[in-house]
Amino acid sequence: MAIILITGGARSGKSARAEIRAWGFAGQPVYIATAEPLDSEMSDRIAKHRARRGQDWRERETPLELATALAETDGGGARLVDCLTLWLSNLMHAERDWTEEAAKLVDALGRQQSPVVLVSNEVGSGIVPDNALARQFRDAAGQLNQMIARAADEVEFVVAGLPLRVK
Amino acid sequence: MAIILITGGARSGKSARAEIRAWGFAGQPVYIATAEPLDSEMSDRIAKHRARRGQDWRERETPLELATALAETDGGGARLVDCLTLWLSNLMHAERDWTEEAAKLVDALGRQQSPVVLVSNEVGSGIVPDNALARQFRDAAGQLNQMIARAADEVEFVVAGLPLRVK
Amino acid sequence: MAIILITGGARSGKSARAEIRAWGFAGQPVYIATAEPLDSEMSDRIAKHRARRGQDWRERETPLELATALAETDGGGARLVDCLTLWLSNLMHAERDWTEEAAKLVDALGRQQSPVVLVSNEVGSGIVPDNALARQFRDAAGQLNQMIARAADEVEFVVAGLPLRVK
Repeated sequence: MAIILITGGARSGKSARAEIRAWGFAGQPVYIATAEPLDSEMSDRIAKHRARRGQDWRERETPLELATALAETDGGGARLVDCLTLWLSNLMHAERDWTEEAAKLVDALGRQQSPVVLVSNEVGSGIVPDNALARQFRDAAGQLNQMIARAADEVEFVVAGLPLRVK
Repeated sequence: MAIILITGGARSGKSARAEIRAWGFAGQPVYIATAEPLDSEMSDRIAKHRARRGQDWRERETPLELATALAETDGGGARLVDCLTLWLSNLMHAERDWTEEAAKLVDALGRQQSPVVLVSNEVGSGIVPDNALARQFRDAAGQLNQMIARAADEVEFVVAGLPLRVK
Repeated sequence: MAIILITGGARSGKSARAEIRAWGFAGQPVYIATAEPLDSEMSDRIAKHRARRGQDWRERETPLELATALAETDGGGARLVDCLTLWLSNLMHAERDWTEEAAKLVDALGRQQSPVVLVSNEVGSGIVPDNALARQFRDAAGQLNQMIARAADEVEFVVAGLPLRVK
């Protein structure tokens, strides 16, 4: 079944684009949020995303166990995973081996019956960060994007709300 | 009339591309600069842009009142607004409500008789900034790009001086 | 002969893409590394790139004298220059005039008999850096990309490992 990766910069319109893609499939879509409302800035962003999406989604919060969440929601409408870059950050904070978890996710994607739309951030087109941890995160985020893009049937790069098809 | 948004990273060749597009329309083009020469780095950049453009432009400095500047320069050649991201920064420094001003700009764009070419920066594809104000600016810049892209007839994303058509 | 520029963010898959392009030409390819193993992070990255490339490359380390390296390796397989952004950084650290060196490189590219694939980084799509030196570097990197893109027969922008043709 269709695996679609939507990537782009911050506030490029990735989530809104991903929602449109998820509604393009039959069935009620499932929103799988990787964000945790740890501070007011994040809570605010989660609330804004929810307000835009409206009430017609099943919702699930999954900071870490994406492969499990996909398995448990398979068989109905499309699943929208928003977003992979935050999931990576959560894995790193939890001191998980992200490459192993990413490999499990790729395996899980290959087993899905229903579509999956995954949102990811481009974080590698600024100046090299001073901070070694930020450089590691940036490298990992780029590698994760490549892994998921290889597994995906379609990849879109979103600029100013507009999708550019790259695969 | 044609509304064209040219976006891209710093020194990607956005302004030069926008100048080419502005000259593609009949009439003498008007350069609407949102930059203010507040320090020597900015004065230097303004001088370099002016040297490249040459003498054949009408010029106007408009740090804040873009909708007014467009109304007052309508009816002749194309207007080049360079750039929206600096305009956003000026609005924020002046403690204006940028979403209101952006909505006014979108309205103004809908009323133009002559073409408008707008330059904007991509600022959201680096690592998440540590600084909360930088994150707010980055979010606002991304949202502004989406608003103007929706109002535009054409959108180009410039990479290494080369335009990619995204709308 | 073919001059190809491959640009993209950090860990976007630029080097792997450039290797594929270099192998697309007849003859044994030459890997021209501009990186110097000055610290363990850089040594590690160089080792990873080398492991992926395998043994079938001629290799040359050239932190500064790119035009000379191209002249001396011409006449056989394609040369892969990885990467221009690090070369720019090396020039600046060595207090060379980078615009002069870039002009020499463009001249050298025009004289090659064998193909050249050049890798470059996009560094201008994040928030404006606080640091004046970082802003200068970012500006120079953008200008260098434009100069090389003008001299190139093909330019690809790589996103999540996938090439977008921009020239």
